[in-house]
Formats: sequence, structure tokens, C-alpha cells
Amino acid sequence: MQPITVLPVEGLPLIRAGDNLEKMITDSIPLLDGDILVIASTVYSKAKGNTRDLSTIQPGAQAEHLAARNGEDPRFVQAVLDASEELILEEPFILSALTCGHIGVRAGVDHSNIEDGKVILLPSDPMGAAAEVQEQVQALTGRKIRVIITDTCGRSFRRGQTGHAIGWSGMTAIRDFRGDTDLFGHELAITEEAVIDEIAGFANFVMGESNNGVPVVVVRGCETWSGHDNLYFNRNEDLTRRALTSQAANEQKE
Amino acid sequence: MQPITVLPVEGLPLIRAGDNLEKMITDSIPLLDGDILVIASTVYSKAKGNTRDLSTIQPGAQAEHLAARNGEDPRFVQAVLDASEELILEEPFILSALTCGHIGVRAGVDHSNIEDGKVILLPSDPMGAAAEVQEQVQALTGRKIRVIITDTCGRSFRRGQTGHAIGWSGMTAIRDFRGDTDLFGHELAITEEAVIDEIAGFANFVMGESNNGVPVVVVRGCETWSGHDNLYFNRNEDLTRRALTSQAANEQKE
Repeated sequence: MQPITVLPVEGLPLIRAGDNLEKMITDSIPLLDGDILVIASTVYSKAKGNTRDLSTIQPGAQAEHLAARNGEDPRFVQAVLDASEELILEEPFILSALTCGHIGVRAGVDHSNIEDGKVILLPSDPMGAAAEVQEQVQALTGRKIRVIITDTCGRSFRRGQTGHAIGWSGMTAIRDFRGDTDLFGHELAITEEAVIDEIAGFANFVMGESNNGVPVVVVRGCETWSGHDNLYFNRNEDLTRRALTSQAANEQKE
Repeated sequence: MQPITVLPVEGLPLIRAGDNLEKMITDSIPLLDGDILVIASTVYSKAKGNTRDLSTIQPGAQAEHLAARNGEDPRFVQAVLDASEELILEEPFILSALTCGHIGVRAGVDHSNIEDGKVILLPSDPMGAAAEVQEQVQALTGRKIRVIITDTCGRSFRRGQTGHAIGWSGMTAIRDFRGDTDLFGHELAITEEAVIDEIAGFANFVMGESNNGVPVVVVRGCETWSGHDNLYFNRNEDLTRRALTSQAANEQKE
């Protein structure tokens, strides 16, 4: 097995709406076939103008209500509601499912790393976004790379955020070991590994979060794998979603 | 920033109880100061003899009851109960909190990658285990490395297992950005990053799970960071634990 190298893409300028992000990246680092290019969704959304001016948002009654309860700006809450397909928790923070399947706090709407009075949204079609970056890089360089777009999320049981994949292209989200055997010839107990999130998480570690942060990372030398893209639980499987939803419903009854 | 390299430690023999794991590792790869040595808990536990023979386990009434309900071997379930400090879910699988703070399915008790009739337990003191590996490696090589011991766990909302840290030494679990500012001078919204799990996850990806798996990985070239080791939520913070526990209690009432 070859060693894997992880390269932060340094020297990118501050990204603005309309920037050709793919060209800025390929101008900053020579890419190789098979490279996994990991891009923070914030920087992708900024380049694509996927942001909102709070001053243009008229909060509705639900936004006013939740904003008062959680101590937030009603216009920010309206942006979160607009980005959500279904609310799972309303307090102490909004947790919601997005159309793409991702579940995140405040729908991933972010007021960091952008000018005052603006918010960054997650890409509305992150899978399409990843595929587009892959195509653009191939058009610019001839290289067939793989792409992951990340969001930073909390988890159950454990404190602290980690990077998660919300869009990917050129590889499957899950490495599927079903039918494989262990060192003793038994069928494996653990058969589906969410490798896309393991890669997204490490890239997030290399990116950092503060003003020294680097929003794009290249992971080089990863083998290919076989699997599938069925990353999100369906409702029946998702014990946490079910428990959170039923607790919220019970509290409303009381 | 230097590139980071991730090196699988290849050529390790099948690990058996009593093996000097640290010596086997340092004989296989020259380590450098600052390297992060990531070890799958299964292989650590096997070397330390932290396994149980199912034939020596006498299941109690609760183990018999849960085994019948979940279709498992009552002796295996007894091993899970013995390893658990508190049950959070009893079905469709046991989810429990361990003394070390980690919450995992079936308490991390594993019947893969071991001979029939035996199970591998998680190290009972994974923090102590990581510190001991760090010391042993320093004694053998003079190198001051960092150590992570991993388990493979499911998550909320998303299908597939990922690697998580259960023990670590020589670095903090959380990188703490509190007080740092973003590119626009605002205080950061995301302030605590669980870098230890981001590293553990990627190492797990590089390890693989099947009979070609490599249970030890070296991550080289990571910067240091400041933070804290308060990785596990306390009960009040842990919305998922609270919701799962209250749902289980409600189902019992019905």
C-alpha cells in the first residue's frame, strides 16, 4: 500500500461570488488522477453566490416564535426554515432534514466567514455541486479526480464538531464489505463503512476553522473501493430521529 | 504547512495474547517524534488478552431475556452487560455507556477477527492503554509519539460505521477555537472540533475492515493544537441520550 498524503491548498484568496473556484484551485495545486478534492461547503457556496442578505428577509410568525425562544435573529431563523425540509427539533436549536437527506443544526446556515448581515447557505444540490466541480476540473486539467463537499456538524454522545460529507462525486459514500470474511474466515459483523465521512472529517481537521483556515484540501493516494451511495438512514431505521421527534411531540402535549 | 502522510503499518503478524505489540510495531516502522500512532482496539485487546471465552460465561436472567429478544447468544449478551455501565437501549440492539464515557452498540464487544467461541472486549481503561503505548514506544525508541486507540461505531442519521477514538495520549481530544476569530474578525460560531475523532476516522478508512485489513496506522506531520479532553457529553447536554432513554421508558410503560 502506498502512503496517503493530505495537502492543504494554500494561497487561495478570499472567495467572492462569481469566482471561478475550480480554476483558482487548479491554479494553486497540480492535481493528479484519483486525487480526492475536499471543499468546505462555505467556500463553494460563496463562490456560487449561495448566500442571503438578512436585510432582504421578512421573518414569518414561526421564525419570530422560534427566534424569541432560542435567542436568535428572526431573519436568520427564517433563512434556516427556508433551507429546511422538515424540522426534527425546534429547541434548544433547530435541527432539520434538508432535501438532499442531510440532517444538521440550523440547516447548516452559517454567519461565520462572511460579511456582517449575510449568511451562507449549504448548496441546495450538493451532489450536483460535487459532480460539477469534478467536471470543471477535468475540463481545465484533463485530470479525473474525485470530489467531496463538507459541512461541519455536531454528533450524538460526543462533544465537538467534525467534518461530514454532504456531496460527493467519483466514489461511493459507503464502502461495502458484505460477504467479505475476517482473518478467521467468518463473515464480517461490520459491513458498511461510511468512508466518505471518514475522509471529510480528516480533511476538516487539516482545514482548521479559524482565520488561518484553508478551505480546500487534496487527499492523494487513496485506493478505490466498491459500495453504494445510500448514506442517509430512512425514517424507519433512524432510531435517533424517531426518538428526538417523539420526545418533541410528547413535550408539546405536556 | 507541510503535507501530512498516513502510513499503514504492514507486515504485522496475527496478534496473540501476550505479544509485545509496541515492539512489533516499532520493529515494523521507524517512528518519528510527533507521529500519531493509531491502533484498532481489537488488536490492542488481543495482545493484552482482553478477551473472553464464551464457554466460561454463565448468562443471567437479563442476558437470557435480551438474547431471546434480539436473537443473540445469551453468553455474548452477558459479556455485553458485564462491559456496560448503563444501558441506553435494549433493542433492537444493546446500546450502552461504558465506564470510560464511550457509548457504543453492544459495548464494543466483538466476535469478528477472533477464533470461534471467543469475544474481544474494548480495553477497560482506554486512556491508560494509550498512555502505556506512548510510554512503551518512548522506552523502545526514544521517540515521543502521540497515540489513539479506536473503535468502529455507528452514528445518528447516517448509515455506515466510522472510526472513533476511545483512548488517546499526547494530545487533546478537542481543538478549542473559543476566542478565535474568522476571516472577518467575528468570533467563531464553531469553537470546539473533535479532531481526535476526525483522525481516528481517517485511520479507520486506511485500516480497512476485511481480511486485508491493517490494524495500525501512522499519521505523520500533524501540527499540535490546544484544547481539552472533555470529549463526552454530560447527561444534561446529551439530547440524543435523553431522547433514546425517555423513548425506551415510554415504550416500557405502554
